Amino acid sequence: MVPRLTSWLLPAVLPCATLTQAWSTNYNLTEKCSSLAASISIPDVTVNFAQFATYNLSTCPYPYQVVFNDLCRVAMRVATSRRSEITLEAWLPTNWNGRFLSTGNGGISGCIQYIDLAYTASFGFASVGANNGHNGTSGISFYENPDVVADFAYRSMHTGVVVGKKVSEAFYGKAHNTSYYLGCSTGGRQGLKSVQDFPEDFDGVIAGAPAAAFNNLTSWSGHFLTILGNATSPTFVPLSMWPVIHQEILDQCDGIDGVVDGIIEDPTLCQFRPEALQCPPGSGNSTNCLTSLQVLSVRQIFSDYYGVDGALIYPRMQPGSELIAQFLYYTGTPFPYTTDWFRYAIYNNPSWDPNHLTVQDAAHAAHKNPFDIETWNGDLSAFKSRGGKLLQYHGQQDPVISSDNSPRYYDHVSTTMGLPYSYLDDFYRFFRISGMGHCTGGPGAWQIGQTYGGAAGNPLLPQDNILLAMMAWVEQGIAPETVTGTKYINDTPSLGLNFTRNHCRYPFRNTLIDPARYQEADAWECK
Amino acid sequence: MVPRLTSWLLPAVLPCATLTQAWSTNYNLTEKCSSLAASISIPDVTVNFAQFATYNLSTCPYPYQVVFNDLCRVAMRVATSRRSEITLEAWLPTNWNGRFLSTGNGGISGCIQYIDLAYTASFGFASVGANNGHNGTSGISFYENPDVVADFAYRSMHTGVVVGKKVSEAFYGKAHNTSYYLGCSTGGRQGLKSVQDFPEDFDGVIAGAPAAAFNNLTSWSGHFLTILGNATSPTFVPLSMWPVIHQEILDQCDGIDGVVDGIIEDPTLCQFRPEALQCPPGSGNSTNCLTSLQVLSVRQIFSDYYGVDGALIYPRMQPGSELIAQFLYYTGTPFPYTTDWFRYAIYNNPSWDPNHLTVQDAAHAAHKNPFDIETWNGDLSAFKSRGGKLLQYHGQQDPVISSDNSPRYYDHVSTTMGLPYSYLDDFYRFFRISGMGHCTGGPGAWQIGQTYGGAAGNPLLPQDNILLAMMAWVEQGIAPETVTGTKYINDTPSLGLNFTRNHCRYPFRNTLIDPARYQEADAWECK
Repeated sequence: MVPRLTSWLLPAVLPCATLTQAWSTNYNLTEKCSSLAASISIPDVTVNFAQFATYNLSTCPYPYQVVFNDLCRVAMRVATSRRSEITLEAWLPTNWNGRFLSTGNGGISGCIQYIDLAYTASFGFASVGANNGHNGTSGISFYENPDVVADFAYRSMHTGVVVGKKVSEAFYGKAHNTSYYLGCSTGGRQGLKSVQDFPEDFDGVIAGAPAAAFNNLTSWSGHFLTILGNATSPTFVPLSMWPVIHQEILDQCDGIDGVVDGIIEDPTLCQFRPEALQCPPGSGNSTNCLTSLQVLSVRQIFSDYYGVDGALIYPRMQPGSELIAQFLYYTGTPFPYTTDWFRYAIYNNPSWDPNHLTVQDAAHAAHKNPFDIETWNGDLSAFKSRGGKLLQYHGQQDPVISSDNSPRYYDHVSTTMGLPYSYLDDFYRFFRISGMGHCTGGPGAWQIGQTYGGAAGNPLLPQDNILLAMMAWVEQGIAPETVTGTKYINDTPSLGLNFTRNHCRYPFRNTLIDPARYQEADAWECK
Repeated sequence: MVPRLTSWLLPAVLPCATLTQAWSTNYNLTEKCSSLAASISIPDVTVNFAQFATYNLSTCPYPYQVVFNDLCRVAMRVATSRRSEITLEAWLPTNWNGRFLSTGNGGISGCIQYIDLAYTASFGFASVGANNGHNGTSGISFYENPDVVADFAYRSMHTGVVVGKKVSEAFYGKAHNTSYYLGCSTGGRQGLKSVQDFPEDFDGVIAGAPAAAFNNLTSWSGHFLTILGNATSPTFVPLSMWPVIHQEILDQCDGIDGVVDGIIEDPTLCQFRPEALQCPPGSGNSTNCLTSLQVLSVRQIFSDYYGVDGALIYPRMQPGSELIAQFLYYTGTPFPYTTDWFRYAIYNNPSWDPNHLTVQDAAHAAHKNPFDIETWNGDLSAFKSRGGKLLQYHGQQDPVISSDNSPRYYDHVSTTMGLPYSYLDDFYRFFRISGMGHCTGGPGAWQIGQTYGGAAGNPLLPQDNILLAMMAWVEQGIAPETVTGTKYINDTPSLGLNFTRNHCRYPFRNTLIDPARYQEADAWECK
């Protein structure tokens, strides 16, 4: 039983306060914040403002951000080379808990994740977030500017941490006690990059659905188009078929875990057989079956992606994610991240055609591996030695980054360091979150405290919240055995609790002991 | 309920009768058999003898063969080209059941399978078996003689069938009513080859553990050496570790089917994690764990084998077979079939080195594909149209030919012909035999009537014997829904029955309904 940590009381959430409202609540604080701008003197750092102003990019999906507690918002421009810079913000709450935290980014943006700053600042963390070296959601900034690529690969976040810690110290008048990281997707990769290459930056790193093996992931993201062709190709699968395919996947695999509940608890056990949907002779333009060519397309989507000379590029899409993945990957059109990465970071050729991506392209990208963005170093010795803790999680229904890749990294660390799981447990734990989509959402008990939207259960219990769990691990040595996820009815707390489930750390598998009570967390065991 | 077929009474088995004893039981028969030699006139056929003599090769594993009923044994030499010939035998029982049957071969031999002739002749089949175009268990006969390769790929068996039917008619004075095939391993491939390319040869074909995708299979058989290296390599896994690995595989996967009984009912659900055996630091020369390099070797063994440009060569070794496979594939020495095939059939270079097999070699072999030995044609229309029936089976613990390849062929037929399983069921059924090794043996209920040694249960019941089941399918239209396997205690009938299990036809999966009664066949359902 993990004890309640009453010293980490969450501040009350301000109901729908706007930025301006939040900022205006405390004149003395506002003044102190304003005066900070003049007092900061850090090489390469220019403070843009330290008060009231808003900084939002029209290309980023954050037109405004509600804040949940009083804080000083510092916006900075930090040069990272003669031809590159980052935009950095530090959110410094008045109810500081003595801790530092960096947020991360997503996709190939370019966007400070304000919601994560607001969420972590609400706990009292001195929180920072950067734009990852360029603005907006496109990768065109990489074009003929490797320094922008370097920012994206590692430098933006590390720089933000170094600067942010100084800003925090300047504001509070003393250094932080412990430092944390919270991110998902590209943010998950940034967390692993920090653990691999900047082991002193954090005491605790939460890396969700990491975009690790980045070049290979990006090739994989683009290879669906080469499988399916465009919407007029005979190999293309109409979007209307994906719900049918999803149901067939559930028919074949949902029951393997002992209960048919729409959640494939461990999709690695699901070897989907798309031939089950083969159209029989004379079925004409049937809308609930697949032609032979379409069957082969679907089989390829759910098969590991191999490249030149027998090398694995990236594991298969895990089955179960297709209701969302169809709109990202199976549309018959290029996936923008792949297009941008190859055009602007790999080939510096804006006319490179994503319709003709080949395994040779994939090999080239993996070999070029700009600034080691691959983030696949399995030696975490330095991080382990300094006492760092790494908590990785991955939704088992992730439509963007196949969850099959996360155990692959964990196992890679195991063999690279020569440590079985019982030793890795000391500093590295990886949780498989059944029924979670990409970082958030899904039919499972996906609310584990990974984001503001994913905070649920008892806000004081580390068992229900991975950010609190990480603090307990770093500061009290209480390592999380399981992570309890919460599922509300229609994901709406006011409608009441649907169920909870304890998610197991790898390599344990969630095993149903009492099928009649499958919606009770204790009806399952990690085996 | 499949009815008893009392017209197919098995003859009494002669207790340990030697060939000579068997032959001497009927003088008139002996004379009729002898006189046959002079009366046969078939182009290219020379009758060596038709009486008493024994024909055995010292290089073949059959120094003698007990026969179980009176029969006329005809030994022939049949020219297949100006520089190739086959040795053919026809065993013509006195209690002829009006049916013709051809047996097959194994490995890359070269050996008439006398035990199969004796088994099928005991049912009353006019049975034939050939030496597959060369003598002995080596492939050296292929060297610079493509006609010998052609015999091995397709011609020996087809020739034996054409000649054998004539010999049978000459002996009995009338043509057979129906014709069958029974074979496993290379014999399984020969069965598929017949279905694909000689659809008129048989009414019913039983193809066990087929060596289909033959060139790729042969590359796969050789690639274990390139993974493991020789016995002094740091990547080599000591043979003493394989029982430990086997137990870990069972620990991870045996319970997935609902019962821990040493049998992984469906190994496709087993995604083995060898990192579980990673040696911890300081374990020195431990004998029950694996170094990192050994872990990677084991992972590769249980991963699909991919080659150039993302092409699958052959699926992974299915987990569970390692107690036997270790002595075939994991020894740190070349696998003879691979060596011979590449030296004498692919490269015509006796110094080709199996230690340096590459994916390019595999691609070259697959491309050269002598006489379409690959046997991967998925269009079985002609066989279907003439009313032929194909029964495929594959042991799910096969240490020689991974059982993962058989559903792959079935699915390939499904998409090639555009037929879902419910349509394939009309003429093609594939049964997955849990706990069966390569064609025979294993901890499961592996006795399904596939060989003399695999005949068990009620010898009159098609449900218990696939040869009887095939007759019922062809002649009465009663298709097998399941195949019931028998397991005796220690595989010794006199010790009594251990258990029976109904094996499901693909794509159905055997699913445990009543765990307490898992040794009862009806505790499982095909779902």
